[in-house]
Amino acid sequence: MRMYDIIAKKRDGGTLSEAEIAFAVNGYVAGDIPDYQMSALLMAIYLRGMTDAETATLTEVMANSGDRVDLSSIPGVKVDKHSTGGVGDKTTLVIVPIVAACGVPVAKMSGRGLGHTGGTIDKMEAVPGTRTSLTQEEFFAQVRRIGLSVIGQSGQIAAADKLLYALRDVTATVGCIPLIASSIMSKKLAAGSDAILLDVTMGTGAFMQNLDDAIELARLMVSIGTAHGRRMAALITDMDKPLGHNIGNALEVAESMAVLQGRGPADLTEVCLQLAANMLVLAGKGDLTACRAMAERALADGTAFEKCCQMFEAQGGDTRVLRDPGLFAKAPYCYDLVVREGEGYITANDVEKIGNASVLLGAGRLKKGDPIDFSAGITLHKKLGDAVRPGDVLCTFYASDPALFAAAEEMYRSGLTISAREPAAPPLIYARVTPEGVERF
Amino acid sequence: MRMYDIIAKKRDGGTLSEAEIAFAVNGYVAGDIPDYQMSALLMAIYLRGMTDAETATLTEVMANSGDRVDLSSIPGVKVDKHSTGGVGDKTTLVIVPIVAACGVPVAKMSGRGLGHTGGTIDKMEAVPGTRTSLTQEEFFAQVRRIGLSVIGQSGQIAAADKLLYALRDVTATVGCIPLIASSIMSKKLAAGSDAILLDVTMGTGAFMQNLDDAIELARLMVSIGTAHGRRMAALITDMDKPLGHNIGNALEVAESMAVLQGRGPADLTEVCLQLAANMLVLAGKGDLTACRAMAERALADGTAFEKCCQMFEAQGGDTRVLRDPGLFAKAPYCYDLVVREGEGYITANDVEKIGNASVLLGAGRLKKGDPIDFSAGITLHKKLGDAVRPGDVLCTFYASDPALFAAAEEMYRSGLTISAREPAAPPLIYARVTPEGVERF
Repeated sequence: MRMYDIIAKKRDGGTLSEAEIAFAVNGYVAGDIPDYQMSALLMAIYLRGMTDAETATLTEVMANSGDRVDLSSIPGVKVDKHSTGGVGDKTTLVIVPIVAACGVPVAKMSGRGLGHTGGTIDKMEAVPGTRTSLTQEEFFAQVRRIGLSVIGQSGQIAAADKLLYALRDVTATVGCIPLIASSIMSKKLAAGSDAILLDVTMGTGAFMQNLDDAIELARLMVSIGTAHGRRMAALITDMDKPLGHNIGNALEVAESMAVLQGRGPADLTEVCLQLAANMLVLAGKGDLTACRAMAERALADGTAFEKCCQMFEAQGGDTRVLRDPGLFAKAPYCYDLVVREGEGYITANDVEKIGNASVLLGAGRLKKGDPIDFSAGITLHKKLGDAVRPGDVLCTFYASDPALFAAAEEMYRSGLTISAREPAAPPLIYARVTPEGVERF
Repeated sequence: MRMYDIIAKKRDGGTLSEAEIAFAVNGYVAGDIPDYQMSALLMAIYLRGMTDAETATLTEVMANSGDRVDLSSIPGVKVDKHSTGGVGDKTTLVIVPIVAACGVPVAKMSGRGLGHTGGTIDKMEAVPGTRTSLTQEEFFAQVRRIGLSVIGQSGQIAAADKLLYALRDVTATVGCIPLIASSIMSKKLAAGSDAILLDVTMGTGAFMQNLDDAIELARLMVSIGTAHGRRMAALITDMDKPLGHNIGNALEVAESMAVLQGRGPADLTEVCLQLAANMLVLAGKGDLTACRAMAERALADGTAFEKCCQMFEAQGGDTRVLRDPGLFAKAPYCYDLVVREGEGYITANDVEKIGNASVLLGAGRLKKGDPIDFSAGITLHKKLGDAVRPGDVLCTFYASDPALFAAAEEMYRSGLTISAREPAAPPLIYARVTPEGVERF
């Protein structure tokens, strides 16, 4: 078998066999196939597509390219959740404690932020002392003991995906549905949970820019997981505006704790309840109505918040900042952006640009390994669709160096449009995808 | 400017600007852009195509990436000729002397054989003593003195093309008309002739497998050359069977000399006369009828043959083998392939496989730098369309080691079909493409 022939076959629109996909991916991981052949294949896949069967095979090969976590020593139906990424997306810190408080164990691996999107692991590390690297024994023991743990993804999970993603990232082959689906699902399958809820974000801050693509991605991932014996569901959620008001690591932890304490923003609270309810359904806790009520109860009676504190405490975190976010180290400088345009409505407020502005303030990273300023970020006072008048404060920037404000403001404003006509409000959740089909809201 | 954005633009079907093409190609030559980004771009170009303007820009950038030969010190209209490659394609050794004998200077750079196709430089070196590496001063002086020289291409001609071709060769991005056109024309523009005749081969032994593609490639190359002020024409010639009977270096030189001495095979002689006549037209020697008569005269009166001997002599070659090909070193072993099938016609005789069989006999090379056995090769006694009976000799193999015959026979026979019905005979020349349009025969 020759990589050349595999490239040529996909280039001409052919369907790759299991043997061919395994040859290409395993050969690439082994270093036998050079970057330049793999990137040619990735571009051919981007432009020619892959069948569901090819995507399932690619996922399986990648899942087998590293360690596979065996969660069977933890009793119960283990439920995982994955978001395709967004700006100000702090739902994990809310829903994992809710689900665990309802008696469903969560042993979850999360990622770090890169580019305009944030990552749960960075947010957790904003809580002083929090360890996000546990040994497998510590990780399992914690979930058995208190029902939840969130840690960083080990380098040994889906090793092929790590290499392929790095190559896709520099060859303009990221935004391809079969490649996105296999990348996500290879990690989720290797991570070992019995059930997986996918949060497929859609909008200006997400990979997916339209509902058909988002549903297709969700459908494909649900079908891959189902084929591997996992209980699967996906929600398509809106990312045309960030959930809640805060972007930036400590700021987002504070907002998550507000939700867990029953005083969070309505949009964020609602999406977290829906996601948590769907995870509970996957765990077999009842129908959606019953599970929704269960999730609401866990918020209302404080058990979810206490579960969250338990988790951080178990991982070494200083839970005083969770109980009183005023104790977080504050950014020394802040800056209000005011409306300079006329009266009207915010009809565009590009979420990727909001995310990039927060990176420019120090809250994120342009490339892997860049340091993060946990106190930096943005609080949004006016969001897409809101009515504004000249002089209104749009948002507040936080940074450790006031010299950062100018570039961040330019970035933020480049995605902002204020117009006379009130735009239609997008729903929070567009659709739900299960093995049974697609339900649009 | 970022290579990533250039790849993404072409991936999405966009048209690259001059600045973008120059950034990508020059950055690649400089080593600033890695192979894996260039191969992703090449695959995107393969699948998305390029406009004529993009192709012309790519050609120009590649032509400027190395030395450009200035032939202005040689008086007259310098005419070049390029064949897109074939098996047993020995026309250069015939037509360059014809054209030079008619008073048109030819300062030509040629290539070596690779894979199933041969190269003029290897054939010339089959003549003992022949030097194919001249200094520029020697090259120019020879053309000024005797009107012709054929030498190997210098590594400094179109440096970008050399790098890009090597990458295309291993990433399944060779067979793409804009990339083929820009590769050929960048070398031809840099080589400095005033007029260029293209011989676009078509058939089982050529890149182009159908007439529409061949005409499109010819049209594109003619348009690029015309835009750069060159007089251009192209003939689409048949490569469903080799011209003449001989494949292999010394064997092909012998057959070329036979044509120059007026006793060559009819098909080879006819194609050489048409190519030579078209070169003379480009040089302004008259219309096609007059130029054809001129070329025939140069064959008939022996001046073309003498011109050929002059060239080899000037380059150190032993012209005794040209005057008496019986003096060529003979392969020590020969082997006749006989018809084993029933009576009928040769309805398929894959030219690429004939070429590969000759490589297996030692006449060509699988990879650059492999040594060549000048005496090895094949003489075809029956070709595509010929009637055959069991026991007829199809061809004779020549090699220095009888152990090579079995694999070569298997290769040869794998492309051979003998059937009852006589196939239609392909024309020798399918079409002529000039800046004025396409003339199909």
